[in-house]
Amino acid sequence: MDLFASGTGYQTPKVDIRASVFKDDKILMVREKIDGAWSLPGGWADVNTSLSESAVRECREEAGAQVKPKRVIAIHQADRHYDFPYPYTIYKIFVECELIENSFSANTETLAADFYAIDSLPPLSKERNTREQIELCFEAKKHLLFETVFD
Amino acid sequence: MDLFASGTGYQTPKVDIRASVFKDDKILMVREKIDGAWSLPGGWADVNTSLSESAVRECREEAGAQVKPKRVIAIHQADRHYDFPYPYTIYKIFVECELIENSFSANTETLAADFYAIDSLPPLSKERNTREQIELCFEAKKHLLFETVFD
Repeated sequence: MDLFASGTGYQTPKVDIRASVFKDDKILMVREKIDGAWSLPGGWADVNTSLSESAVRECREEAGAQVKPKRVIAIHQADRHYDFPYPYTIYKIFVECELIENSFSANTETLAADFYAIDSLPPLSKERNTREQIELCFEAKKHLLFETVFD
Repeated sequence: MDLFASGTGYQTPKVDIRASVFKDDKILMVREKIDGAWSLPGGWADVNTSLSESAVRECREEAGAQVKPKRVIAIHQADRHYDFPYPYTIYKIFVECELIENSFSANTETLAADFYAIDSLPPLSKERNTREQIELCFEAKKHLLFETVFD
């Protein structure tokens, strides 16, 4: 019932956001309670919430990080990037955010938060983000101007 | 029932796309059957469809235009830009597309398609696009690189 009974109106792709937050040359990742693996802070965009607000909320809740959204790195249709069989179409929007401060604290969704270099990423929570998507966040970070990648 | 009974899963913002398609210095607009006013070609993003595919489909169906999506101009949370009382949260994604060819033909949604200069826009279908959003499309068009604007 949770999976199939809570939507209203015309069925469009659902929106999931992922935040790309750097400290020096390392990216912020959180360890998911659900599988013990790591992902960029993120989750479903909530109704009555803008893209920026969703990114800010997820970083605060999952990583204890205060951030300022700066630009949109990518809009991916999830099933083009994952083998995981999603029950619905998802647009995953990657938002680059500036880190203001961070202090992880216990919460219902994640076990830890830390910063990782591209050559030493932890085991990835595979239906949340791929190595290629994280590499794209590193690539975007190098550019002064970066146009949003999309499928 | 159509309005409130067709969704599944966690409720996120719905995705509406609008295409920005230029011929010389004029933007492609379609006249909506529903209110007789004009908008950028667009509509709900469909499930199992990427952002590009949705933009291509809407341009074909509503304007008889064959286009190639190039970049994302903006991701707006609709209720920050419209007075119209939407029953749900909508992310409106504006996609700049290159025009390949166009030939309007009768269809179920639109009455006509034509190109308009910014200083002679027709009456706008106000819950589909605002003058400010169309101006943003003209602004983006001037730039070789343009980062996606978002709320």
